[in-house]
Amino acid sequence: MTATWLNDGARALDEQARAAAVARQGRLTKPPGSLGRLEELAVDLAAMQGRECPRVLDPVITVFAADHGVAVAGVSAYPRAVTAAMVRNFAHGGAAISVLAREAGARFQVINLGTVNDLEPLDGVSRQSLGSGTLDWRAASAMNAMQFDQALCAGARAPSGDLFIGGEMGIGSSTSAAALVCALLAVDPARVAGPGTGVDEAGMARKIDAIRAGLRFHGASLDDPLEALRRLGGFEIAALCGAFIAAAQRGVPVLVDGFIAGSAALAAVRINPGVRDWLIFAHRSTEPGHEYVLQALEARPLLDLGLRLGEGSGAALALSLVRAACGLHANMATFDSAGVPET
Amino acid sequence: MTATWLNDGARALDEQARAAAVARQGRLTKPPGSLGRLEELAVDLAAMQGRECPRVLDPVITVFAADHGVAVAGVSAYPRAVTAAMVRNFAHGGAAISVLAREAGARFQVINLGTVNDLEPLDGVSRQSLGSGTLDWRAASAMNAMQFDQALCAGARAPSGDLFIGGEMGIGSSTSAAALVCALLAVDPARVAGPGTGVDEAGMARKIDAIRAGLRFHGASLDDPLEALRRLGGFEIAALCGAFIAAAQRGVPVLVDGFIAGSAALAAVRINPGVRDWLIFAHRSTEPGHEYVLQALEARPLLDLGLRLGEGSGAALALSLVRAACGLHANMATFDSAGVPET
Repeated sequence: MTATWLNDGARALDEQARAAAVARQGRLTKPPGSLGRLEELAVDLAAMQGRECPRVLDPVITVFAADHGVAVAGVSAYPRAVTAAMVRNFAHGGAAISVLAREAGARFQVINLGTVNDLEPLDGVSRQSLGSGTLDWRAASAMNAMQFDQALCAGARAPSGDLFIGGEMGIGSSTSAAALVCALLAVDPARVAGPGTGVDEAGMARKIDAIRAGLRFHGASLDDPLEALRRLGGFEIAALCGAFIAAAQRGVPVLVDGFIAGSAALAAVRINPGVRDWLIFAHRSTEPGHEYVLQALEARPLLDLGLRLGEGSGAALALSLVRAACGLHANMATFDSAGVPET
Repeated sequence: MTATWLNDGARALDEQARAAAVARQGRLTKPPGSLGRLEELAVDLAAMQGRECPRVLDPVITVFAADHGVAVAGVSAYPRAVTAAMVRNFAHGGAAISVLAREAGARFQVINLGTVNDLEPLDGVSRQSLGSGTLDWRAASAMNAMQFDQALCAGARAPSGDLFIGGEMGIGSSTSAAALVCALLAVDPARVAGPGTGVDEAGMARKIDAIRAGLRFHGASLDDPLEALRRLGGFEIAALCGAFIAAAQRGVPVLVDGFIAGSAALAAVRINPGVRDWLIFAHRSTEPGHEYVLQALEARPLLDLGLRLGEGSGAALALSLVRAACGLHANMATFDSAGVPET
């Protein structure tokens, strides 16, 4: 039923380029290993880009926005009207990710997949509405088959440059992400659900109840990761999943943001395991469910700054580290060239 | 005996600017607290710079280089000739910190306080030699009173811009830093000493023995932090200490690098406690002694990337986070201005 492209293999890593990069690291004027994670990052990127000296010249940040039917369960600290208002804020340059994208010199665009409040045409926002948000998955599938297919394709169609960052905006998104993670990893909702944008204790209880209701309603259909994503995800989570799979197929590294992008990455890897090779994890979110995602994907994020904003903001921050890793790898002198004694 | 300027008070933080920054953070278009450490960073910098919106327009990176007498004990994986060779590498732009300083657009200079191998004049290197390295502190004071004074002043005289990063280069420096930390915190050398540039097991044993010998030789004289620094430190560690104290007195925030810069920061705070307010800790080094320094200073570093290079490299990396924190704080829209519903 769903597009067969999802299962096409991810591009293979270039192990020759990796070996060349490892050798180069050993010649740079520093004690071996003293740049820690930055060395691993440069070597991994070399294998992805198929060149001894990887580089990031054209990073792309795409934020997918959409509303969630489950928001009516009172699971968020904010009303759904915020989703559309924030899309406007992205376009006007006032959101965190707008500021970070500008400072990073990254290509930045927003894809609006369907908000409850409609929006005027906005520069930098591509309107690809699949409806005014998903259905409430406590008693329905979040998306029908056509919406799901279109959401995945909207992600896959988005340009990925030479490094892709996917962000998301949508009131209720952390509830959908938590439900998806519970379904994919069989973890109890009380362990995965977190405060999201900052919901109070009563809201947290409603959030956990909503997830339990969704898991109960959809039952064994959730055993298939694609079905779990269609039934419990959001338009933006499905689009992120499609974007991650397509990037891996194109051979473009992905810098994965926090919990919600992480849930999409988890779904992507469950659908197409080769995608894992192309994912770099940007940061550790304070959302408790993120830890489960990271463990399941054997991921060690670069940053741990107590972030829980989404929008791709943590990934945009980590971009400077990725670039520094490439810069050091390419531009440091070697022991030979600098005439530094090696022992 | 030693210059009395060391005890002049650090500038007081501006609590009005801090309060204004806290209020501003609450108005920005994001859930309160969702930018985690970046919010704290912006608010702390506001208090330091005395303005609601802090900024870093003129960061300065200064690397102090010097050789260590204790290196003859065989405590390093590299010969002392490396110190001078690396100074040349800094000047020629091939060292890690050269690359990072260039990419960050930071002012970068090297101050050579005395290497075993003499060097030709080099662009960007200020020669302020206090001798061909310190004495071996296993049986002498590392510095005499005049050298110590001059090293502290060399640090204090270095320009600090509007954010100061101090780096260091010197074969044997992690042994001096470890000895200093043992003296200041009364921790056993076996817990503090680490592989540094990557010394082998036999070298580690020599390193621990050397530190024990130094602690024994200097005995109760080490109770005074200034004396501990003069007797066990290096020219570059004393210079870093002087630079940190002077920056705090001038009201310039300091981004503290890893273990060796951390040992200088610890000495600075022991000498002049008000300095602590001006220190931002960039990263957690893999050197085991760093943890003791961080705990003693109640510091939570921004990055944890397995770095152990020194040169100021970890601080130069963290600079991008500091700038991002300022950029978000100043340039994000407020709920009011963006017309985003707040609840």
